[in-house]
Amino acid sequence: MKQKNSATAVIEEIGKKLVEDVEKGRNPNLDVPVRNLANITFDAKTRILKLGNKTAKRFFFNVGHTKKFVQTLEVAKIAKNLLEVQKHASLRDVFYMAKRTIPNTKINIVDEQAETDKAIEDLELITDSSRELLHINANKMGSVAGRVVIEDQGDLIDWSKLGSGGWSIPSNVENIKFRKVTANYIIYMEKAAVWERLHEDKFWDKNNCIIMSSQGQSTRGIRRLLQRLSSEHKLPIYVLTDLDPYGLYIYSVIKFGSISLAHMASELAIPSVRFLGITTDDVNNYDLKKHFIKLKDIDLARLKQIKEYKWFKNSGPWQRQFRMMKDFNSKVEIQALSSKGITFISDKYLPEKIRKKDFLE
Amino acid sequence: MKQKNSATAVIEEIGKKLVEDVEKGRNPNLDVPVRNLANITFDAKTRILKLGNKTAKRFFFNVGHTKKFVQTLEVAKIAKNLLEVQKHASLRDVFYMAKRTIPNTKINIVDEQAETDKAIEDLELITDSSRELLHINANKMGSVAGRVVIEDQGDLIDWSKLGSGGWSIPSNVENIKFRKVTANYIIYMEKAAVWERLHEDKFWDKNNCIIMSSQGQSTRGIRRLLQRLSSEHKLPIYVLTDLDPYGLYIYSVIKFGSISLAHMASELAIPSVRFLGITTDDVNNYDLKKHFIKLKDIDLARLKQIKEYKWFKNSGPWQRQFRMMKDFNSKVEIQALSSKGITFISDKYLPEKIRKKDFLE
Repeated sequence: MKQKNSATAVIEEIGKKLVEDVEKGRNPNLDVPVRNLANITFDAKTRILKLGNKTAKRFFFNVGHTKKFVQTLEVAKIAKNLLEVQKHASLRDVFYMAKRTIPNTKINIVDEQAETDKAIEDLELITDSSRELLHINANKMGSVAGRVVIEDQGDLIDWSKLGSGGWSIPSNVENIKFRKVTANYIIYMEKAAVWERLHEDKFWDKNNCIIMSSQGQSTRGIRRLLQRLSSEHKLPIYVLTDLDPYGLYIYSVIKFGSISLAHMASELAIPSVRFLGITTDDVNNYDLKKHFIKLKDIDLARLKQIKEYKWFKNSGPWQRQFRMMKDFNSKVEIQALSSKGITFISDKYLPEKIRKKDFLE
Repeated sequence: MKQKNSATAVIEEIGKKLVEDVEKGRNPNLDVPVRNLANITFDAKTRILKLGNKTAKRFFFNVGHTKKFVQTLEVAKIAKNLLEVQKHASLRDVFYMAKRTIPNTKINIVDEQAETDKAIEDLELITDSSRELLHINANKMGSVAGRVVIEDQGDLIDWSKLGSGGWSIPSNVENIKFRKVTANYIIYMEKAAVWERLHEDKFWDKNNCIIMSSQGQSTRGIRRLLQRLSSEHKLPIYVLTDLDPYGLYIYSVIKFGSISLAHMASELAIPSVRFLGITTDDVNNYDLKKHFIKLKDIDLARLKQIKEYKWFKNSGPWQRQFRMMKDFNSKVEIQALSSKGITFISDKYLPEKIRKKDFLE
């Protein structure tokens, strides 16, 4: 991926090339990498999803292409403008910026946000720049605490001195500078309530780690923050989710990347993360069967899907987890540990699991 | 509502009273205020929802009461324990703590979280202590920035020096101390993406205000934080939502309280908040009709409901809004303002609305 500032240059190059097409009487066109499953592979060496080399030409004079061609250029114009004025916009903002009627027609450049979202993904590919570098942000979510000092927007922020709330993670973490990182590892958890549990118990303080949380699926801001801490500071990351197909999917996306963002996997995927729990073995070891919640049909369907993911398919330990989960026919939530005592998770479960290195890869 | 620490005393009193019932051969019973609509009124003077004086006796020896009686005591036991060890738990945690089988039976004390949630609400009423004072927290959500210094858990936290992220609002803000509040007002918005827009534009810095956001419906932590800033520091609060029935419902809950939490209204409702936008007049004044999104049936049903709320029913200005909204048959999102320019909301819309005091009460 390109470095900051170069995104503007790439967009300008694309513009110049299109002007040249017009001047030389060529049909103006863009090379857009193909983003379907056939062009996505799982790289067994780097262990992340990867987009292949297939590209397709998108022409201005082609009834099947014109709309997408115009939408891509519109989004490129918006990104260039954002970069010039040094502002960021959300996906929804970009949709409204692009949504206008072409003069003397009744045709809108876009009618639905799905169209600008797609065009932005195409622009990421064409410019080889992540959405964040194009100054387009996803939603903001999540909190973090631990012994880390960062610099952001001229402020020095100490993640260990933010009371009960913690630092609110922004949607875009590209410009953050890590000034001092003394924590030894990161626990990333799916649930904000569990984060508050660990925070109140001063888990990060006693164990010198970082605790980070979203609510549900992790945002791009969180994934990038985890990735930067992993690559720039070599911090191990342990993922803590419910034992259910959704939790395993969250883990899978953090570790290997997601199919819809395969082109961004090298920026977002973190092959070194490990799954801490809840595992099917935890259910036996910590006597959690009485807190089983029956899986729904949709959970079972997702379990079947995940089991077949290339990166899980040849893993004995993971296949064993999937089998046991199917036998259980149930999910178990992280908070089931609370039945053993308020601070059981902080005093016993986590320290024990981490000491024993009881992780899944 | 009771002050901190007294919750333990009240729980102990209840326990002693029940022991006395047993010793004197009375059927052990609790007085539980009735929480149905018939016992909820809208106090025209304070302009918040209010629970009436009706109570019902809940007996231990009564096949229709036993289960609820036991659940209420179980939750009281958990709360007392939390208060003693000075820990907080989430609603989900409390469910797992209560969920166990009564020895020598196959009966669980609770089977669903809805049961502990209800028991907790009853306990709030019986003890006249909010859930937060009973050390039971809801979910954590939202960010805040502005010229405010707070003290929390021994940390001094300056909301104006937290980079692009801001302070992450905890689920429980009862123990926060405001050390320095120099901001003049608060803008509370429904959308995290709009918060990031205003934050990047340094809106709070230029206008000396506080910006606060959740994502969707506001949490109890946020409502309490707003209420404390309103009552302890007399800061005006302006609410910014989409123009749609859901946005108006968010406003209504912040201002008047919600029916399900009517017993908490005096802790949570903020009668002085004002609705900043998006209003139906904004749609005309800022030329936003082209960004109409058709209302769904469910939106129209909710609009009809809100229109009939006692506090809106006799308000000419609000009834006009509802009528225009129905005529539009459409919603308009805050981000539609982005179509006028990236910083239009920060540079023009908000300053203009606030200068003209163009609010709805």
